[in-house]
Amino acid sequence: MTIRKATDEEPCPVARSVDLIGDRWSLLIVRDAFDGVRRFGDFQRSLGVARNILADRLRKLVDAGILEMRDASDGTAYQEYVLSTKGEGLFPIVVALRQWGELHLFARGERHSVLIDTRTRKPIPRMTPQAKDGSTLMPAFTEVRKVT
Amino acid sequence: MTIRKATDEEPCPVARSVDLIGDRWSLLIVRDAFDGVRRFGDFQRSLGVARNILADRLRKLVDAGILEMRDASDGTAYQEYVLSTKGEGLFPIVVALRQWGELHLFARGERHSVLIDTRTRKPIPRMTPQAKDGSTLMPAFTEVRKVT
Repeated sequence: MTIRKATDEEPCPVARSVDLIGDRWSLLIVRDAFDGVRRFGDFQRSLGVARNILADRLRKLVDAGILEMRDASDGTAYQEYVLSTKGEGLFPIVVALRQWGELHLFARGERHSVLIDTRTRKPIPRMTPQAKDGSTLMPAFTEVRKVT
Repeated sequence: MTIRKATDEEPCPVARSVDLIGDRWSLLIVRDAFDGVRRFGDFQRSLGVARNILADRLRKLVDAGILEMRDASDGTAYQEYVLSTKGEGLFPIVVALRQWGELHLFARGERHSVLIDTRTRKPIPRMTPQAKDGSTLMPAFTEVRKVT
């Protein structure tokens, strides 16, 4: 059996990202953070996750520089978890997960939450990889150039 | 403790997607499928994953309609796993994972694989959520409208 490469030897950016955030709870914590959730108890209520698992994932996300811990904005003794710039960079991943789910995992007419542009109050347009000329880039027109 | 909603009651498309493909192996199998990997042994060699785990994840991806099983294209007795249309719809997710990794998980100058447009042989442009006018949509200008 092939031994899996350690993350820091892994030349595939997809694999490195997946190693860091490619699990159910990390992805849902990041989703909630974009949605304005900041406190341990609020993450717990939103996710219905066991405290020890939530604590573990939050710590990993802080260690990875995706979340930052801050004192509560309201002057209470709470700690808050806020997306760093690196964490905000995960936005396209969350949007891509959302849009695929909207398209493929709901029955016609079944209700789901919608991500809207607050300036227009309209759902945001579908995001796709684009070629330099702005046309939609299909997977068939792409290829991974491996590190040699 | 809140009991987590069953997936089919979950009104958040991110959560439904994450429930289906939000684990390390599923995401890497999908990545490999976009990269042209089709056979059990080739997935195994690429991922270094135990056979029973690989078999489980492939079966789930087939059951979810993301991969389709076909007889081998070369007339041998092998089965091949090929992305369905629904599976090809995961392309933005894989691209988003890749681009975040490229930007945040490699040291300057550290080599990594690159996704290129085969028509130009150039790396594909960064993908971002866009507003209707084509401008980059920042998370701060978005909001999730929940199902009420």
